[in-house]
Amino acid sequence: MSEANASEADLIISAPWIVPVVPSNTVLMDHAVAIKNQRIVALAPRSEITQQFNASESITLETHALIPGLVNAHGHSPMALFRGIADDIPLKQWLEDRIWPLEGQYVSREFVRDGSLLAMAEMISGGTTCFADMYFYPDEVAKACLESKMRVQLASPVLDFPTAWAQDADEYISKATQLHDDYRSSELVYTAFGPHAPYTVSDEPLMKIAALANELDIPIHIHMHETAQEVTDALAADGRRPLQRMAELNLVGPRLVNVHATQLTAEEMAMLAEQGASVIHCPSSNLKLASGLCEVEKLRQTGVNVALGTDGAASNNDLDMFGELQLAAMVAKAVAEDPQALPAAAALEMATINAARAMGLDGDIGSLEAGKYADIAAVNLDSLSTIPVNNVISHLAYAVQAHHVSDLWCGGDELLRNGELVTLDLPYIKQRAGHWQQTFQES
Amino acid sequence: MSEANASEADLIISAPWIVPVVPSNTVLMDHAVAIKNQRIVALAPRSEITQQFNASESITLETHALIPGLVNAHGHSPMALFRGIADDIPLKQWLEDRIWPLEGQYVSREFVRDGSLLAMAEMISGGTTCFADMYFYPDEVAKACLESKMRVQLASPVLDFPTAWAQDADEYISKATQLHDDYRSSELVYTAFGPHAPYTVSDEPLMKIAALANELDIPIHIHMHETAQEVTDALAADGRRPLQRMAELNLVGPRLVNVHATQLTAEEMAMLAEQGASVIHCPSSNLKLASGLCEVEKLRQTGVNVALGTDGAASNNDLDMFGELQLAAMVAKAVAEDPQALPAAAALEMATINAARAMGLDGDIGSLEAGKYADIAAVNLDSLSTIPVNNVISHLAYAVQAHHVSDLWCGGDELLRNGELVTLDLPYIKQRAGHWQQTFQES
Repeated sequence: MSEANASEADLIISAPWIVPVVPSNTVLMDHAVAIKNQRIVALAPRSEITQQFNASESITLETHALIPGLVNAHGHSPMALFRGIADDIPLKQWLEDRIWPLEGQYVSREFVRDGSLLAMAEMISGGTTCFADMYFYPDEVAKACLESKMRVQLASPVLDFPTAWAQDADEYISKATQLHDDYRSSELVYTAFGPHAPYTVSDEPLMKIAALANELDIPIHIHMHETAQEVTDALAADGRRPLQRMAELNLVGPRLVNVHATQLTAEEMAMLAEQGASVIHCPSSNLKLASGLCEVEKLRQTGVNVALGTDGAASNNDLDMFGELQLAAMVAKAVAEDPQALPAAAALEMATINAARAMGLDGDIGSLEAGKYADIAAVNLDSLSTIPVNNVISHLAYAVQAHHVSDLWCGGDELLRNGELVTLDLPYIKQRAGHWQQTFQES
Repeated sequence: MSEANASEADLIISAPWIVPVVPSNTVLMDHAVAIKNQRIVALAPRSEITQQFNASESITLETHALIPGLVNAHGHSPMALFRGIADDIPLKQWLEDRIWPLEGQYVSREFVRDGSLLAMAEMISGGTTCFADMYFYPDEVAKACLESKMRVQLASPVLDFPTAWAQDADEYISKATQLHDDYRSSELVYTAFGPHAPYTVSDEPLMKIAALANELDIPIHIHMHETAQEVTDALAADGRRPLQRMAELNLVGPRLVNVHATQLTAEEMAMLAEQGASVIHCPSSNLKLASGLCEVEKLRQTGVNVALGTDGAASNNDLDMFGELQLAAMVAKAVAEDPQALPAAAALEMATINAARAMGLDGDIGSLEAGKYADIAAVNLDSLSTIPVNNVISHLAYAVQAHHVSDLWCGGDELLRNGELVTLDLPYIKQRAGHWQQTFQES
């Protein structure tokens, strides 16, 4: 129903249920979103939207919930090629005996491109519109993102030791700042510093990163207190817990993104809350490597921003954010010994708005609100594990499966339509995965 | 290629990978199964099978792994209708304030029929061919199973208190023996006694059940040591832990199926191992209700048969055995603080042969072996979360999703073909789920 004084919109999507995430724990019935120039311009009852806007395209979903595109706050996308290649062994052995040698042998521009495209195809199919990524050749991941039209924050890696990507900390850092310069005006590709971990990066580069991150206004994304061993080793080496060393190096602040954080004292939690730092919880990886159990509920109660990440597919072994969300919601209860810990709505926030906040992007993504990018997932609730629809938010946390995502938009661009990839070439991605499968088998 | 002296078969299925589960941790490349009169008659390299058998039908799968149909060792199928209706609250409150009143209000023959059909549709879609079920009106579930052509073991409920199904323990028990008589010659419907829990069934009916179970040669399927509170309450009531009381009542033996068992001492584990009793691990339910953590690896090391169950969808909230398998494999590592605990192949055994063993059906199902029923799932590994196929068994435990199951046979009957239900009427099932959704909303 077009009206003379109506506004123009590019797209209107209406659905029986919309879960905007902000405000929290809210299900809007029979609402619609209007989208113009990549952004949501209005979210209101269906009838109001159709009166207020003339849209070039209108989509009416009959059995779906619209939610913000999921935000995967930590991963190593190219490692999708390594899924299943090293299971059922401890982190140290997994890294030192398997993953690092494999990376030494295979990681190249070609590997990173093929792996990140595979990862993006999987993430798009499961409702993820944005991800934080820490890997070598981040410039290749950036190019792949422009192709897929997904949003990414590239945590450009920094290590003390040489890899195919850089020779020393200075070169890693200069490549990170270069990447930032190259994409500073991009609306899809964002950057961060990605010092690998306290135990692989020494004081001098960390201080440099702290200064540069302030200057460039970007996050510092780092694996932190992943295992008890890491903390014990650090104490033995210089008498300090890693986070204390970070604090003394001036890294603890709102830019600090602590990935894993399975080992935190109450004082450390309070410090992170006070400083506005974030924790990225990666339950699959922590469980699978028996790294330790992140005390998600205690962190939440202390006021720390906790977001969710899949980690790389080599330690997960998939990139299914709905699976991760469900796992987080369940495991948090066991860890807190309280079935009321991390309720469904809070788990959904960890996979959306909290993740956006950790990346410093919560002004633009993470919820369905006017003014934000139209990063939107449509989840079909007319599925065998989600009927009857007794509770939409419960289903999103405890019953939805990745393949129930039917459609996905990032900045208003359609990435998935009726379960089919729009921007990526699936046969090509499969062919490349087959190539690497063969290569690993022959070696 | 038919040969003059070849044997007849009803169906031959060949695939690039077959994981028979027995022998353990084995992947057969380019093999085929031949099926005749509901059972597997041969499993051998593809070329041998095609030489040895003339089959009425031949199916060649190009990108699939064949595995035994999954066996869900514990659930309450009709509760699929209650999914999402009561979340994020403790077990006692969940049962007493929500589930029991809801059951009092709604449970009927119609509810059980509709709910169990929905549950079966979901289980079939996710690769499950057989399930153990404890619920009221098990005779309705039996009828639904004959319709779906799934295999079931009905743990006929016994309680001290009246419900719509029976008035007192004697009536529950007599209905259980009647059900056993009605289906004693069925190849799809098996029975067990299902005393709800030590705290809801008193000594006299338990002793009766022990005697009858021996006589009829069927399992005793019971919720056992689900929470610490249950054990504490029992100790306060009569000075004994529930399992000790069971032992004194003569219930602990190879027929005893202990569901949950999150609270076991080393001595209790040793007793269960020595007596050949089973434990059914339901990780989703235990985590979600914060009931406690089952020490799966310690049980395995002690020699106890541990199988896997989804529990009912009201506490899970889905019936996805692949999700359950993945969760079990991950959580066991955290609980044991050992990433080598419950490796992929062992997790797969919990969802197949160990579950069959708990049900006393391991002579007939739970692995792909000549002589057993042709209960077979085909899993498409050409999926975005399972390429590259670096390790088939790892993928089955850590990366396969329910919807990757493309085809499913139970006793050689096709239940799922290319992802579509064959035996069940999906529109009817959805319509009935919609009816109950409406009914709950209006009340």
